[in-house]
Formats: sequence, C-alpha cells, structure tokens
Amino acid sequence: MKVEVYGVKLDGEVEPGFDLAKAIVEGAAREADGLRDGDIVVVTSKVVSKAEGRVVELSRVQPSYFAEAVAKATGKAPEVVELALREAKRVVRMGRGCLITEDLRGWISANSGVDVSNAPRGCAVLLPIDPDASARRLREEIAKVAGRKVAVVISDTQGRPLRRGQVDVAIGVAGMKPIRDRRGEADLYGYRLKVKEVAVADEVASAAELVIGQASEATPIAVIRGVTYEEDAEAEAKRLQRAEEEDLFL
Amino acid sequence: MKVEVYGVKLDGEVEPGFDLAKAIVEGAAREADGLRDGDIVVVTSKVVSKAEGRVVELSRVQPSYFAEAVAKATGKAPEVVELALREAKRVVRMGRGCLITEDLRGWISANSGVDVSNAPRGCAVLLPIDPDASARRLREEIAKVAGRKVAVVISDTQGRPLRRGQVDVAIGVAGMKPIRDRRGEADLYGYRLKVKEVAVADEVASAAELVIGQASEATPIAVIRGVTYEEDAEAEAKRLQRAEEEDLFL
Repeated sequence: MKVEVYGVKLDGEVEPGFDLAKAIVEGAAREADGLRDGDIVVVTSKVVSKAEGRVVELSRVQPSYFAEAVAKATGKAPEVVELALREAKRVVRMGRGCLITEDLRGWISANSGVDVSNAPRGCAVLLPIDPDASARRLREEIAKVAGRKVAVVISDTQGRPLRRGQVDVAIGVAGMKPIRDRRGEADLYGYRLKVKEVAVADEVASAAELVIGQASEATPIAVIRGVTYEEDAEAEAKRLQRAEEEDLFL
Repeated sequence: MKVEVYGVKLDGEVEPGFDLAKAIVEGAAREADGLRDGDIVVVTSKVVSKAEGRVVELSRVQPSYFAEAVAKATGKAPEVVELALREAKRVVRMGRGCLITEDLRGWISANSGVDVSNAPRGCAVLLPIDPDASARRLREEIAKVAGRKVAVVISDTQGRPLRRGQVDVAIGVAGMKPIRDRRGEADLYGYRLKVKEVAVADEVASAAELVIGQASEATPIAVIRGVTYEEDAEAEAKRLQRAEEEDLFL
C-alpha cells in the first residue's frame, strides 16, 4: 500500500485566462510520468484565482468608514479589510490582529481568504467565486486534454481553532466524495464503527502541501496517486462546511 | 519533488509490552524497502496505547454519580464517560451526544480520546500518558534496532470545529519541529511572508491516514519519505496546542 505525492511546478506568471488544465497535464508528464485515471490533482486556490482574474489592485479599492474602523482595530490595511468585508457574509470575530469572517461561499477563515502573499505587488488575490465549480471545470478540461479521469481538489491554507499553525484544506472538490463515511464498517474486533467520517479531501490537501510548501512558492500543484476514493460527479467541498447548530466545538 | 507514503501492516494483536520499534523496522523492510535516515514514521495512538497497556476493561470501571449524569445527558456509556472524566482537566462543552474535554495532556477533543473502536471487546483504549515521550522512546529504539535516524509522529483521529469529518493530527512528535516557521521568507514577488507557520506534523499525520485508513484497520503505521523537516531532538507536539487566550476562533 503506497501513496505518491508529486509536486508540479509552474513556470512564469499565471495571468487571467491562463490554461491551467494544459499546464497541469504538461507538468504531470514531466514530474509524474503523466496523469493516470484515479489520480487526484490538487491545485492551490491562489493559482486558480489568478487564472480566473481574481486579482485586485489595492490602489483602486475605496475602503468604507466601517472598513477603516475595522482596519484600525485589527492593524490591517484598510483596502484588504474592505475586500475581506465585500467577500464576507458576516464577521465571526475580530480583534488582536485578526478578522475572522464567514465568506460568501460559507467558509470561515481569516480575511475571507483575501491574501496579499504571492500576489503581484500592490495587489490582493480573492478566492475563486465558486471553487467547486472551478474544480469541476478543471476536471472536465483535464479529461478533454489528457483523456484521463481524475479528481480535482482546490486547496487553501488556513489557520484553525484549537491548534497552532496552518494546514491546507479543501475548498473545492470535483469527482471525489470529500468525506468517506465509514460508519457501519467493522473494526479489528468486529465492532461496528459509530463515528468515523473521514474528511479525505482535507487530508489530501494537507498531503499535497508537503510538496507544495516544501518547494519554492512556484509549485502550486500536486498529483496524488494511490488513494482510493469514492467517485462522485456531483461532489462538492461545501459538504465539509459544518453548520453552526451542529458544531459542539464552537 | 516527490513524497512517498507507505502503509505498514501489523500482524496479530498488540499486547502490553509489544515491541513496536522492532515491528516497525521489520514492517518497513517488507513494505518500504527498509527505513532510511530522514524518514518520518507515523504510528496511530491506538497501537502505542495498546503496547503501553492503556487498555481498560469497562466492567471494572465504577462510574461516579457525575459520570452517570453526564452519560445520561450525552447518551454515552457511563463507564466511557467515567474514563473520559478521569483523563480530563475540564469539560469544554457537552450535550447532543458529545463530550468535549481538555485532557490531561492539554488536547481538546471528544471524550478525552477514550475510544472503544479497535479496542478488545468490552474494553476502552486511553491515549498514551505522554505521547511526546512515547514518540521519543520509539525514535530512540528505532535508532538502536535499525541504526536509522527518523522522526516519529503519533497520530490521533479527531473531529474539529468548523469543518465536518475527522482528520488525523499529531499528538506526539519526536525528532522534527511540528511547526515550520516560514515567516520572513520571500514569496514569488519578493514579499516577506507575515503569517506562515505550517503545522507540518499535522499534515504528515493526515497524509499517513491516506494509507492507514484506506487499508484494513490492521495498518496502523505509515512511513513517509521525501519530506524535508527541521530536525529537533527536543521537539514536542505540545507546541501545536493553542492557548485559549490566543485563539480568536473560539
């Protein structure tokens, strides 16, 4: 039993309209002996956003009075706060240098995912409008270009409650169920598992970060081979969002 | 750039005193062409606990009145609640079928990690008393048996706030810094990263689960090859615990 995680580099700048599917297929040919059916392709949200033109010049952003106030309270740039608020449904918590929001897609994270790192100078990158749709498109385009049936995961680097440090998680998914429901399976002793729903897509995103984060920032793609997953053409990363009512940790 | 994750099976029952280091070295010889310097060995807390005799017969546990009350409120077995409370420093939240505690080691999780799955019939398994110490011992024993310098991660399956499904995280670490501090590194555009502390040990635990959870429950070990990490003889998974004061998500 063996899983392989290959890092795939991208050369040059990712501009709006960049053909990610083609770059992935060519990169996988170089690094992973080509794509195979059943591979999982993990792409950072950052490059997906760039290819989709989700890059904003900060000098063109006019912060509202509220954004100015939040910027003051959190020590952030008012333009970044303005963008984060535009991308948000609600503020979950703010203060001590942090602005935690629930974004338009339902993810709870810092600054609605608005990020100036690995963004062109003076710019911020917003998350893809609909990462599940982006993943689906990418999956279809890869099928067209390479004739391979893969799953696609769009990953994002996020802090989390209770534990220090960031990990990469899945915010977009196509072709694989993000959660593997193992309830009812027998354990070593024949006991039926009662609570075992594994967030495979998140684990896949974290495994990908081991090559993505290890190399230079120019490795935004990973190909993961050897993971058995449940195929699902309708799959969505949104399944990983936990409704507040059912969240005992909060 | 390539990372490999090998699953290693254990045959037979893990009893108190079981020589895990020897089993790991032999298993790695079979499945991963032997251990190499720099490999990361991930072991589930379950087998570490079993080897350390952290298995309790439920019929010998006398629940307190408080445990009985909590059991009623949460729908859990009173004996399991009793053990969870004995392993706890405080109850973080309870109700709706859940008992979230901060355990003696400082981890916040369901039932203080007390688990009846993959436990002998009528028994519960407690977490290792000091998973960092267990990891350190294992690392030293592997060095003795195989003459290899590896890092060791002890993993546990945990639910988490905000996101559905469980992932494996690190609760014990030896030989590698659990967090890779990338603050100050330059991004693609020369911008210095301000917030980038990657919880590598957690990502490693999640990557391991891709082979551990995929196979039968009899694969409690993974060997991960190709991850560059910062060696640290003093490293502890405890570094991943987030103090409540600094946790904006809570």
